[in-house]
Amino acid sequence: MQEFFKVTPLETVFRYMHRFGVMDAETLPLRQSSGRILAESIIPDSDYPDFNRATMDGYAVKAESTFGASEANPVYLTLTGSIAMGEIPAAAIQPAETMAISTGGMLPEGANGVVMREYATDIDEATIEIVRSIPPWAHTIARGEDLAAGETVLAPGIRLRPQECGTLAALGRYQIEVFEKPRIGIVSTGDEIIPIDQKPKTGKIRDINAYTLAAMVEKSGGIAKAYGIVADDAGELKATCLNALDEVDILMISGGSSVGTRDMTIESITGLPDAEILVHGIPLSPGKPTILARSGDTQVWGLPGQVTSTMIVFDRIVRRFVEHMGGFHVAGAPPDIRVPAVLARNIASTPGRIDYIRTRIIAEDGQYRAEPILGKSGLIHTMIKADGLIEIDMNTEGLEKGTIVNVIRLI
Amino acid sequence: MQEFFKVTPLETVFRYMHRFGVMDAETLPLRQSSGRILAESIIPDSDYPDFNRATMDGYAVKAESTFGASEANPVYLTLTGSIAMGEIPAAAIQPAETMAISTGGMLPEGANGVVMREYATDIDEATIEIVRSIPPWAHTIARGEDLAAGETVLAPGIRLRPQECGTLAALGRYQIEVFEKPRIGIVSTGDEIIPIDQKPKTGKIRDINAYTLAAMVEKSGGIAKAYGIVADDAGELKATCLNALDEVDILMISGGSSVGTRDMTIESITGLPDAEILVHGIPLSPGKPTILARSGDTQVWGLPGQVTSTMIVFDRIVRRFVEHMGGFHVAGAPPDIRVPAVLARNIASTPGRIDYIRTRIIAEDGQYRAEPILGKSGLIHTMIKADGLIEIDMNTEGLEKGTIVNVIRLI
Repeated sequence: MQEFFKVTPLETVFRYMHRFGVMDAETLPLRQSSGRILAESIIPDSDYPDFNRATMDGYAVKAESTFGASEANPVYLTLTGSIAMGEIPAAAIQPAETMAISTGGMLPEGANGVVMREYATDIDEATIEIVRSIPPWAHTIARGEDLAAGETVLAPGIRLRPQECGTLAALGRYQIEVFEKPRIGIVSTGDEIIPIDQKPKTGKIRDINAYTLAAMVEKSGGIAKAYGIVADDAGELKATCLNALDEVDILMISGGSSVGTRDMTIESITGLPDAEILVHGIPLSPGKPTILARSGDTQVWGLPGQVTSTMIVFDRIVRRFVEHMGGFHVAGAPPDIRVPAVLARNIASTPGRIDYIRTRIIAEDGQYRAEPILGKSGLIHTMIKADGLIEIDMNTEGLEKGTIVNVIRLI
Repeated sequence: MQEFFKVTPLETVFRYMHRFGVMDAETLPLRQSSGRILAESIIPDSDYPDFNRATMDGYAVKAESTFGASEANPVYLTLTGSIAMGEIPAAAIQPAETMAISTGGMLPEGANGVVMREYATDIDEATIEIVRSIPPWAHTIARGEDLAAGETVLAPGIRLRPQECGTLAALGRYQIEVFEKPRIGIVSTGDEIIPIDQKPKTGKIRDINAYTLAAMVEKSGGIAKAYGIVADDAGELKATCLNALDEVDILMISGGSSVGTRDMTIESITGLPDAEILVHGIPLSPGKPTILARSGDTQVWGLPGQVTSTMIVFDRIVRRFVEHMGGFHVAGAPPDIRVPAVLARNIASTPGRIDYIRTRIIAEDGQYRAEPILGKSGLIHTMIKADGLIEIDMNTEGLEKGTIVNVIRLI
């Protein structure tokens, strides 16, 4: 446990989130706002639908006119016309009257229900036989029943899924306020790192982290901008950071798992304008050597050089900072839905830190099995094989085969 | 049950998927391929890493030189130098020798392990005291241990997540073959439908479906192209479809829940070149009046006018056709991971069809509760409140409160 004594508790780490701002809003065409975070309250100024609408093909009636109707005891109604789609019915409905209507059609004044076609028969041109009684408002959507004028339909902070886009279309919101995407600068450090289009000489390695991080940033709703590779030189790193700070909302420095590089990262960050190291070490495994700092109002992260550690820290911690800055906020929603699964073998863990174990989720016999991935934690292929993470809390020393674990999905 | 007699069983519906082709491949910069479907096999032509790499700061050794070392019984090794990051070590390691190394550094010839800093002390300039024995290959990643030359690392058909992008970066794949995105044309039909930037006169309604469908298409990896609104006129609909057929891989006609519009949709599709109606009605509720047809090799869907029905049919059926055409294919993967939850109230269903019940998933007392959304199925606000679907199979007549249901996530 000793090595984790100096880390910052996660509650404290997450509290720093609120120290940083949220992006401004921008106006986008609805067609481009799917997946974006809503930045305004949506309160319809008129009811939707703004007329009583049929949801079945059949006959518009006063429900009371059908009361008591059955196969044995039909009711006969006078057919006074038929309602064209998209048109206002020519007349109102009186007791014992009916008009033919199609799905989506507007109910006539006085009607409060639709009898489905299959329970109605034309007796002659002016008479319909009804063999089923309907309750009031059967097979209709009443005016304002879906979205009522003056009521908040969508609140700022939600992510626009297809159904929210459809709702905005229903309300005529062809332009919509969403939060701007936070711009995230990515700097890779390390004397051993080379650009990916070069063939590494022995001892060198390609810049994996910038590509992995950029993909994670984009999945979290940010815009990634790579600032290239900086050698292990505090001055050079500081200069690159200064340049990036003008253009980004969050800066991520990736690389430097060695103590030397970490010290250099700290030195460079400390040298930035109005700099403050907020967090240096978190109680996560993998991911302990994570740094959170600020330069003015800009978040600066120092992320582990081991790409697998960076991915887990990003998924569990950094992602929420990016999403928060991007305006995402769902009151009371659970942070993530986990999948209960039966652990397929014993796993060890060290108390005093939160351990994340990569796992595969396998459907078997009507339940899920969590199969931990074998292999050293630094191997990227373990992340390829994984579609989930098992979280082992600080107070637990390993888990036994057969335990039900709640798997975090990695998708 | 009777009304579902004429529908096409789902196994048959899904079999038609293979009647349609898969998109061609295109070459993209790696930086733009996150989330895309891989169209080639990735087989490294050299090992990754291509040298033995330290994963901790410490001392490179022959593991055998440390055997038996302990606090009580340290081992003393001769320090022969230090390894610069990204460089080839100047000399090999002999028994009883060691060199200082940082995380990410290259192990010297002859070394097969790293002793962590905390278990080593400088006694003098040339002597290191080791108080811990290590097994061979401790704190290293051996050449090819992550990705081995000649072995398939990634197979075509997978979606590129951040870890796959990172792996491609590691292998220097700055350009990559992915499947082209299928182009999906969307036509809205109905005399009552107006563009969303217009204020509806009574009886009219804005074109919700085109926006909802476009968002779903994009989430499924397709490119949506809207072909506007067509009145209830078979000739006009056919003309619009003919125009779209030249430009798209899949055509979706949305609207027309009324029998009249459905008949018109069928008539228009039947009039297209080399047309065949494959499916007319599926055993889903909501979503029964779904049409699958083809015109030559182009998929043509007729989707319900009720937007909520269209969303559920899309999520459960159409999405897989779009993904399949987009090259997505994961051998043996479960179609979707569901979340077991305790049903919060009784729900009714009709045997003979698969019922989908919109639900919210609520975390409570360490488990999930599935709270079915109240309200008529045609209301779009029920989809806003929902984050999951409960599937009730053909042979089940309702579910009781307290049952464990496996919730499909709607995210």
